[in-house]
Amino acid sequence: MQGVKFLNGKYMAKSVKEYIEENEARFLEEWFSLIRIPSVSADPARKTDMVACAERWKHLLLEAGADEARVMPSSGNPLVYAEKRVGFDAPTVLIYGHYDVMPAEPLDLWKSDPFEPEVRDGHVFARGADDDKGQSMIQLKAFEYMVREGRLRHNVKFILEGEEEIGSPSLNAFLQEHRELLACDVILVSDTSMLAPDLPSLTTGLRGLAYWEIEVTGPNRDLHSGHFGGAVANPINVLCSLLARMTDEDGRITIPGFYDEVEELSEEERRMLSEIPFDEERYKQAIGVRALKGEKGYSTIERNSCRPSFDVCGIWGGYTGEGSKTVLPSKAYAKVSCRLVPHQQHEKISRMFVDYIESIAPDYVQVKVTPMHGGEGYVCPITLPAYKAAEEGFTKAFGRKPLAVRRGGSIPIISDFEKILGTKTVLMGFGLESNAIHSPNENFPLDMFRKGIEAVVEFHESVTL
Amino acid sequence: MQGVKFLNGKYMAKSVKEYIEENEARFLEEWFSLIRIPSVSADPARKTDMVACAERWKHLLLEAGADEARVMPSSGNPLVYAEKRVGFDAPTVLIYGHYDVMPAEPLDLWKSDPFEPEVRDGHVFARGADDDKGQSMIQLKAFEYMVREGRLRHNVKFILEGEEEIGSPSLNAFLQEHRELLACDVILVSDTSMLAPDLPSLTTGLRGLAYWEIEVTGPNRDLHSGHFGGAVANPINVLCSLLARMTDEDGRITIPGFYDEVEELSEEERRMLSEIPFDEERYKQAIGVRALKGEKGYSTIERNSCRPSFDVCGIWGGYTGEGSKTVLPSKAYAKVSCRLVPHQQHEKISRMFVDYIESIAPDYVQVKVTPMHGGEGYVCPITLPAYKAAEEGFTKAFGRKPLAVRRGGSIPIISDFEKILGTKTVLMGFGLESNAIHSPNENFPLDMFRKGIEAVVEFHESVTL
Repeated sequence: MQGVKFLNGKYMAKSVKEYIEENEARFLEEWFSLIRIPSVSADPARKTDMVACAERWKHLLLEAGADEARVMPSSGNPLVYAEKRVGFDAPTVLIYGHYDVMPAEPLDLWKSDPFEPEVRDGHVFARGADDDKGQSMIQLKAFEYMVREGRLRHNVKFILEGEEEIGSPSLNAFLQEHRELLACDVILVSDTSMLAPDLPSLTTGLRGLAYWEIEVTGPNRDLHSGHFGGAVANPINVLCSLLARMTDEDGRITIPGFYDEVEELSEEERRMLSEIPFDEERYKQAIGVRALKGEKGYSTIERNSCRPSFDVCGIWGGYTGEGSKTVLPSKAYAKVSCRLVPHQQHEKISRMFVDYIESIAPDYVQVKVTPMHGGEGYVCPITLPAYKAAEEGFTKAFGRKPLAVRRGGSIPIISDFEKILGTKTVLMGFGLESNAIHSPNENFPLDMFRKGIEAVVEFHESVTL
Repeated sequence: MQGVKFLNGKYMAKSVKEYIEENEARFLEEWFSLIRIPSVSADPARKTDMVACAERWKHLLLEAGADEARVMPSSGNPLVYAEKRVGFDAPTVLIYGHYDVMPAEPLDLWKSDPFEPEVRDGHVFARGADDDKGQSMIQLKAFEYMVREGRLRHNVKFILEGEEEIGSPSLNAFLQEHRELLACDVILVSDTSMLAPDLPSLTTGLRGLAYWEIEVTGPNRDLHSGHFGGAVANPINVLCSLLARMTDEDGRITIPGFYDEVEELSEEERRMLSEIPFDEERYKQAIGVRALKGEKGYSTIERNSCRPSFDVCGIWGGYTGEGSKTVLPSKAYAKVSCRLVPHQQHEKISRMFVDYIESIAPDYVQVKVTPMHGGEGYVCPITLPAYKAAEEGFTKAFGRKPLAVRRGGSIPIISDFEKILGTKTVLMGFGLESNAIHSPNENFPLDMFRKGIEAVVEFHESVTL
């Protein structure tokens, strides 16, 4: 019983810091075992890895102290469910995470193997080190502490999905089907980021998302650009023109009706946003650009969190190999997305986009638009008791009250939780911009890992449900 | 001496038709032996094949009757030179061709292996079946007939290069260095096409070419489009806007000064062009488009032969794999080209383009423009005696006087020949639009192969130099 403390004959719970210190080597091994399974949901060749990763989570959840854990089928990749009940009538916290990761490409920009974690300068480098294997591991280890040290006073459920990075196509139906199983009083998610390591923040708003693939077909085969160039429309030229028309000179999206549901920011909100420390020069330097570009009349923070955006995520067509082949290609493609703000309905926006593109598509090409995934934005009220508990968690771990901020990313399923389960979500995210999620050399600082566990433990300790 | 005819004791030359019939199986085998060497000049991995193809040509030229043939080094791929002298003072015809071919990609659209010729419905299907292995073979076999039947009255020189499809980067210096060796009275080239199988035509004008690669760099790494989208310029969006700005609503190229040297077509020329039979409905049907698109105020034939054009030949950037990855990419690329008309200088246009792009490139991205290859356009006077001889060749082979037309393709070296060797070129091309050069399923009709040989033999028979 070495290390176990008693005071006046009463068992003294080990402090979180002590617990982490004693178990950290094991924590890392467990975390790394998840990373080593390349659970890339966008890649159909990874189906076996998806199942393996789900099974690994099930094992880790049981080890951590869950009464029960199971891998549950869905119309897509399976989900992992686990629970620890302290009492039938006790309130319940549902913890959501995802075990799938983004593709690691371009591979040549990684300094180490994306699926073999490497610790350098106190950071874990790997695909999923942060998003979301690292952050979900924080939740798991806080839970383990609460269970093993006998401090849990509410039920805890876990649900981990394997399709978050492709828009959670199966989750909605899964939630509908398992509404009773997943019933809870609040949902806790670690999949967002803070403003800076010394500037803790809690995300109170998220942007929605709509995503499409566009295929432009010109002639029925690649043509000789000498024999046909100038007389036959080139589908790449046309695609570029269409995409260029999607935003105007003020950086506003030109789809008719696009801004109809966008709430203008109140003066009060704009004042709060302007109080978030932000060094534009450092921001530019960090991403290596000389100037920023966005919607006229809004600040950078407003642009990347409270205003919609239009990005071409990928484009391809014609000859892209070595040298200089002249060709008037038959086809051109693009993958494009809009970040949406709360109140914009992604399905409505998606139809709007398709209608708009079809209406402006010239008759000398054929344009096909395929809606891919999408999701609504979300707002969490800062008066929610569970939000207050998260605030206390951050205050304890980081020594400073966290700022409430809205973020530009999308977790489309958060609004689904509210719609289907009738429950609000608290976003306790421990990521940092420098963690480079979705990019080469994704990483997670070990220091944030430790503080994250402390913060979540404090949430469990102080939450009233 | 079977098959050799005598009349009144005098040797009667075999007719071309008879000669072709008797030797066709061998002709095809020789032609196919060239096709089977994948001499793709754009692919640096094909260096060995380039040399093998040049050596194969040398062998075939000697077999056909050249006194001498050699593979000559250049700063790039080697050239093949051969000659047959009938007399020191005899005039000389220089025949130019190229042994390199375009890349065969996209391979999945080929019905048979691009480098294993297949005869279907009287057509040879393969990369290079027409451009230019098939057409050069016509020249070789007409030459063989003239030599073997003892009918050659002028010297013949051959020069075959291995870099035509990548813009002949080494030819200019080679011509300068070997001006004496290549001295001639006229140059004959089979690398163009006719209007239709029953509509023989000779090309009297060609467009020039300028080609660039554009690289747009935004942030120094791929960014999360949720965290940065709307606040940081997306290089694909910017590239699309730049490319969309290169042409205006009337289909005119917007580079300042671009049209300065473009000669407006005279009423007389426009009348002649309008007499070329052209069925717009059939043209659209053949390439599978509902409508045509080009510069306002010009007909389709004018647009694709006498007016400049701007085509994006290739574009790529961001995520182009399976599924829907959201990303704000770091880089976007395009390969773009302009077809130029006679009098436009490609180097001047090339600089103009670079200056223009740099002047309109916004400060929130970095834009790098790399000029690739280029070449001037060309005009051949229809009063040239060698042009008349070509006309007679076509009339004999096709039973109809050929139309003089200007074509939209580029053979940049034709204007170099004039500049360096001081010699006009006659373009006796036997291609057809349906031969799909530069495209999957390139092919050449055997009937055109035979008629081509007849026409070139008649050229040799009737030319006065």
